[in-house]
Amino acid sequence: MNAAAKPAVGTLLVIGLGLIGGSFALACKQRGLCQRVWGLTQDTATQARALELGIVDAASTQLETLAPQLTAGDMVFIAVPTLSVRGVLQALVPYLSPEVTLTDGCSVKGSVLQDVQAVYGHIPPQVVLGHPIAGAEKSGVNAANGQLYENHRVILTPTEHTGSQHLALVTALWQGVGAKVLQLGVQQHDDILGATSHLPHAIAYALVDTLAQDTRTDNIFRYAAGGFRDFTRIASSDATMWRDIMLANPASVLQALDAFSHNLQQLRTAIAEQNGQQLLDIFSRAKAARDAFVNAPPSP
Amino acid sequence: MNAAAKPAVGTLLVIGLGLIGGSFALACKQRGLCQRVWGLTQDTATQARALELGIVDAASTQLETLAPQLTAGDMVFIAVPTLSVRGVLQALVPYLSPEVTLTDGCSVKGSVLQDVQAVYGHIPPQVVLGHPIAGAEKSGVNAANGQLYENHRVILTPTEHTGSQHLALVTALWQGVGAKVLQLGVQQHDDILGATSHLPHAIAYALVDTLAQDTRTDNIFRYAAGGFRDFTRIASSDATMWRDIMLANPASVLQALDAFSHNLQQLRTAIAEQNGQQLLDIFSRAKAARDAFVNAPPSP
Repeated sequence: MNAAAKPAVGTLLVIGLGLIGGSFALACKQRGLCQRVWGLTQDTATQARALELGIVDAASTQLETLAPQLTAGDMVFIAVPTLSVRGVLQALVPYLSPEVTLTDGCSVKGSVLQDVQAVYGHIPPQVVLGHPIAGAEKSGVNAANGQLYENHRVILTPTEHTGSQHLALVTALWQGVGAKVLQLGVQQHDDILGATSHLPHAIAYALVDTLAQDTRTDNIFRYAAGGFRDFTRIASSDATMWRDIMLANPASVLQALDAFSHNLQQLRTAIAEQNGQQLLDIFSRAKAARDAFVNAPPSP
Repeated sequence: MNAAAKPAVGTLLVIGLGLIGGSFALACKQRGLCQRVWGLTQDTATQARALELGIVDAASTQLETLAPQLTAGDMVFIAVPTLSVRGVLQALVPYLSPEVTLTDGCSVKGSVLQDVQAVYGHIPPQVVLGHPIAGAEKSGVNAANGQLYENHRVILTPTEHTGSQHLALVTALWQGVGAKVLQLGVQQHDDILGATSHLPHAIAYALVDTLAQDTRTDNIFRYAAGGFRDFTRIASSDATMWRDIMLANPASVLQALDAFSHNLQQLRTAIAEQNGQQLLDIFSRAKAARDAFVNAPPSP
């Protein structure tokens, strides 16, 4: 399906070797998409483990020794929790050539664009922000998976400032690891993901927390079925990562949350008033939408 | 694990040949747990299909020809949508010997107990209400699966009126198809399932319906990830069945819904106030509870 030639990335520097960064590094390594893959992490245990697992060719905790070596055709991929991006940029930018392509994998794009603006004072052409729509309830370097991005969507959010050669390089590298690349505006991305991803996580966390506090039985989860297991899978996601996402995308998340709460209260009223027709309408409409989503062809 | 001798059920009459009834009939047939399995359905196409699939030995749309033939050691299993139970009982009871064990598979037990009280005028010893904690987003006779109940829990809700021989027979038959049998009080069952099952379904339906009405993109689901697919699986459940459950268990569902809404609004406030510590506390607590649920040993 992907007939593009292998992208000519020289050195790929991945900052943050958790699930997202580690999987990207490993996928590029396994497919020979870069001449070399370097990893940067503040955690020495992660550094050692990444080398042991063969996720990177070299790993360091010292940004100032890696970043100055990068030049045109090289790429930096930032894969840290959203609210850690600004600190990374502040440490990175003094050492980074304007010819190096700079991208990220954060789930919120507006806050990262603000970080870029704040640190650079403008949006330089080398910056191509992106978001792989892939994840798992597992996290950390041990969860790195070279196949994570295969047939998953990656949303890039180029701006009017984005250099076409940098956009092409990021696009090619994501396609190289098997992803389908789409483009959205920054605000559009944050609104849509606020509704389809950030809100469901907020709901799942709130539901599990509600049940965990239920005092009517010593372990209410004992009576939960398989559907509950699936329904709450995303509540096992990394708590720090999701704290950052909620804090970084508050307007879109709150808008989606309020729309959902409004609908849930309508459903509440229908139950309280024993309005069977309204319940049937809501459930039938939702089932049809969900069935259509599941049965839709996988291409973007 | 299940060393019990095969239960001595003569004729099993299953009323309603959807996923729950069809799977129970098929499981009993496949394991030879009954001398014969009869099916009753109002739908002639379902009747023909059940015979074709070998789910039952005989099928009919005529209750009055089947029910009078049942005697001690036989069993009736009612597996229709919750609010159809009363009509079934009204049609069945005039033909049913008091020696025949009568059980059901509905997701709400209080309303069915009220139906029994209304039709009989009392709770006869032959009645043993139950609820298999198993299901799927599939429904109908074609979804019947003889392995559906293996290692799933079945909650029986006997009362002070329940005859011990009837309770023993229902218990043995569920164990015979591989289920783990627990007992709860009727109200306790409805409260717990209201929180762990009925509420999550209400949430999933409301969420999918919210997104389906989102006008910001022609197909917002296009940008949803795998987590969303799992999260919303239960929104593909049968709409009529779930309408009935919500109408039959309003007090427990609304209590659970209000507790959840309260927690979601707290989370909303934490996002709006940029209270990262509170978000981290909620997410960490929920993740720990969910991870413990998933990693718990499977035995009841």
